[in-house]
Amino acid sequence: MTRPLIATLGSHSALQILRGAHDEGFACAVVAPAGKDTLYRRYPFIDEVIAIPSYDAFEALEDDLIARQALLVPHGSFVAYLGETTNQTLRAGYYGSRAVLRWEGDRDLQREWLTAADVPMPAGFATADDIGAGDWPVIVKTFGAAGGQGYFLARSRGHLDDQLAALGHDRYTIQRYIVGVTLYVHYFRSIVHDRLEILSMDRRYETNVDGLGRLPWHVQQAVEPVPSYVVVGNSPLVLRESMLEEAYRMGERVVATASDLIDPRGFWGPFCLETIITPDLRFHVIEISCRIVAGTNLFVDGSPYAALWFDEPMSTGRRIAREVREAHAAGRLGDVVTGHVPSWDAFDRTSRTDHIDRIDEAAR
Amino acid sequence: MTRPLIATLGSHSALQILRGAHDEGFACAVVAPAGKDTLYRRYPFIDEVIAIPSYDAFEALEDDLIARQALLVPHGSFVAYLGETTNQTLRAGYYGSRAVLRWEGDRDLQREWLTAADVPMPAGFATADDIGAGDWPVIVKTFGAAGGQGYFLARSRGHLDDQLAALGHDRYTIQRYIVGVTLYVHYFRSIVHDRLEILSMDRRYETNVDGLGRLPWHVQQAVEPVPSYVVVGNSPLVLRESMLEEAYRMGERVVATASDLIDPRGFWGPFCLETIITPDLRFHVIEISCRIVAGTNLFVDGSPYAALWFDEPMSTGRRIAREVREAHAAGRLGDVVTGHVPSWDAFDRTSRTDHIDRIDEAAR
Amino acid sequence: MTRPLIATLGSHSALQILRGAHDEGFACAVVAPAGKDTLYRRYPFIDEVIAIPSYDAFEALEDDLIARQALLVPHGSFVAYLGETTNQTLRAGYYGSRAVLRWEGDRDLQREWLTAADVPMPAGFATADDIGAGDWPVIVKTFGAAGGQGYFLARSRGHLDDQLAALGHDRYTIQRYIVGVTLYVHYFRSIVHDRLEILSMDRRYETNVDGLGRLPWHVQQAVEPVPSYVVVGNSPLVLRESMLEEAYRMGERVVATASDLIDPRGFWGPFCLETIITPDLRFHVIEISCRIVAGTNLFVDGSPYAALWFDEPMSTGRRIAREVREAHAAGRLGDVVTGHVPSWDAFDRTSRTDHIDRIDEAAR
Repeated sequence: MTRPLIATLGSHSALQILRGAHDEGFACAVVAPAGKDTLYRRYPFIDEVIAIPSYDAFEALEDDLIARQALLVPHGSFVAYLGETTNQTLRAGYYGSRAVLRWEGDRDLQREWLTAADVPMPAGFATADDIGAGDWPVIVKTFGAAGGQGYFLARSRGHLDDQLAALGHDRYTIQRYIVGVTLYVHYFRSIVHDRLEILSMDRRYETNVDGLGRLPWHVQQAVEPVPSYVVVGNSPLVLRESMLEEAYRMGERVVATASDLIDPRGFWGPFCLETIITPDLRFHVIEISCRIVAGTNLFVDGSPYAALWFDEPMSTGRRIAREVREAHAAGRLGDVVTGHVPSWDAFDRTSRTDHIDRIDEAAR
Repeated sequence: MTRPLIATLGSHSALQILRGAHDEGFACAVVAPAGKDTLYRRYPFIDEVIAIPSYDAFEALEDDLIARQALLVPHGSFVAYLGETTNQTLRAGYYGSRAVLRWEGDRDLQREWLTAADVPMPAGFATADDIGAGDWPVIVKTFGAAGGQGYFLARSRGHLDDQLAALGHDRYTIQRYIVGVTLYVHYFRSIVHDRLEILSMDRRYETNVDGLGRLPWHVQQAVEPVPSYVVVGNSPLVLRESMLEEAYRMGERVVATASDLIDPRGFWGPFCLETIITPDLRFHVIEISCRIVAGTNLFVDGSPYAALWFDEPMSTGRRIAREVREAHAAGRLGDVVTGHVPSWDAFDRTSRTDHIDRIDEAAR
Repeated sequence: MTRPLIATLGSHSALQILRGAHDEGFACAVVAPAGKDTLYRRYPFIDEVIAIPSYDAFEALEDDLIARQALLVPHGSFVAYLGETTNQTLRAGYYGSRAVLRWEGDRDLQREWLTAADVPMPAGFATADDIGAGDWPVIVKTFGAAGGQGYFLARSRGHLDDQLAALGHDRYTIQRYIVGVTLYVHYFRSIVHDRLEILSMDRRYETNVDGLGRLPWHVQQAVEPVPSYVVVGNSPLVLRESMLEEAYRMGERVVATASDLIDPRGFWGPFCLETIITPDLRFHVIEISCRIVAGTNLFVDGSPYAALWFDEPMSTGRRIAREVREAHAAGRLGDVVTGHVPSWDAFDRTSRTDHIDRIDEAAR
């Protein structure tokens, strides 16, 4: 019996997405530009690795993906690599909303959405003149900055002006820098179960700011390292239980507001609110990611929060595949897919032991 | 067949405790003041959510809890919300010792206990005049401070005097601040197996001190953030294996001393030693928590230390339920319960697959 | 039926190694000097604890270990406790290459090996005079320093000279201190499957540098804590997926180069590259460990990376036992063992439930 096919791009959280698809009984394929395909060929659980010359060649695969009834699962690098327009116009089946793409990608619309959802955000400043005396330090985020590259910190007006002059363009936003601790909440909005689940949490591991604290002040004074915020990893966290309900409610307000503001079909699947928590126990949301974030890669083998919802290790990647499988079983695949809705026969979840057998075989 | 009932208050580590009870075949109930009950209604594995107008109304439930043969499992917020007196006088069945409550709640008695157990603690100072030249910095903990709120740091006598003057009262203790790294050890003292288990370890995630290191010294100098120690989360750790035996021995000495000093019945169930480790590989214990701590919430789906004792994922919450189940099977429930000892029939552990079925059903 | 025996020294990652051996159906024994044996007597899964007066007495056990067809699994403390010479000359069966010991133990040879493998390392300086103006800060590592003890940081020539004068000897190396974030990659080179696996990642938890960031600059200025790098624990990490292929390739180059440079038999089993990642997304490798590292102790119950290779929780300790079991089944035990190749009958993997039964029995 042919298993239905889940495919994604080779980057970001593709391993987790494909492993989750595999565990839920799907065949899985990854599309990667030449040179980036080799990582995925290492893992026997991946059924197919499709190398393309560059991301531009992705669209040429579309007819074939549609003919094979594949479902694409997007991740945080889909927009970065394929572009927002391609994400919008792809005809292939795509898990999740595409209407949110425009709201997520534009910092002003994102602020409008989150504000409408009554989600607290740090103050934003259109120009340096708008920054009040009590607003320092500020963080500057250049447009199109991804993975924290292109961010910088300023302690004062002079410090900011110097750095902006060095930048030499005006495509940036200025935010108040909140002094607190970061915590990223990984949500999953299930259409099939009509509920919001919190599946895990992390904090980003950013170079060099997460190494600065290991340098005593006098060494910092001597060598003057410039703080940078490039994300190279993640580490796991849990949240004080008394704050968990507010984390749920923020997520629910974001989902409900999306239905009002963005698209009556709403907003579903995985998303992330990226927060800073201050000593008054308040969340400050610095960003929303509208699909699976890389911090979920910590939880391929389960998480303490997913264990409150499921009796099996449930990564966000696997959660997506589970939702798709259940939507299909309920005849509701069209409710979670945008673009071409794949046509699949009934299918059984492949036993997880299949994979064990395959590995052990090599040893005989 | 009716399953025996485990109940707790809705906060702190209630989700873990109830999930553990569920996994061991108990029915589980949570009592929460209106507004805090909604979190617990989200999770299908919780059998019953009992909303009360406020914590004051808890005692009115007692007769019913006793009639239903419920067992209360206390956590770190039991004393904060119900008060020490209520914890002492509750007639309902209560897992764990109550005699330790007075010793834990009074900083002087706590120091007496830990000192008698030969557990190294940072120097404490009755007044600012007692602080020696080599004792700086110091940390001031106001009485009743919970979750790290109300702590402050002083680098010098002048700095301390200024902050104490601003505080305006004298209900605080002063401790030497140990420069090192924090590590919290989660113990479980089993009566049934007559042994001490280390189940997991964490470090607290405190706002804003765990964010300060991300600010370069010159930004700190410009904006002068005041360090605060409010606990909003936890992250996982393991300890150098060569220090693990001393971690066990400290725990054993604390347990043995409790039998001598506090109550011949002793001290059992989960507890935590909160340590700072210095470069000479020595532990400095800053506090003991005499029941489940929130750091164990990291390990709802298991921990590397629990995996050395058990073949299944074993959180501290589940470990409690396991101990209760085994004590009951051995006719020794009275050895682990204070107050009313529940009267239960024999019971089988419910298969974990029950829960899976319940979740999947919604999708059909 | 007698189970074949895996043995190790009592320290470092012995619990993980033995637990992994147990899970794969081996009997397991630990050898520990008196006083360090007690930790291992706590855990019922360990079949045998052999106490010796001191590490010097280890060699006297050899004939018996050989007669019992035991296989030794070395860990990061084997060289520290038994010495390189003993590691080289032990006649007992030993999992892994011994030819790498000399290359790992000598910082110059280690640099030659990693450089030949095209693995980027921080600049090293033979003397203080070689340090350029842009090379500060530097870190000094005294010879034989283990677990980070004996490291120190210098911000300038004057600062370095003062500290070297205080040191009073010239047995040290000087490295450029890379400002970035640390990440340690845990590899496993399988002979049986002829592949390299990444099983997990961590960062070290070092006292006091990982506590310094919690002290504001003005407190550091007042109390002048001296940074130290003593490893007392580890915390888990995942790496940005787009950097994972380069992590694999570095590991593969290290393995391939070992075959050319060190020993035609090559280099196999667990090893670790200890990296610092800079904001340009480049790895800088500060050290290689040629056997199991303590950071893998985080993953006794599985890791997100091992879950991409295996359907069961797979620690590095268990991975070793799995490889040994599969090599034996394939008649290739001699390919992964140096010294006496144990003679074992065919054996079945013991059911994991054996251990559960043993624990529950005590409660009856």
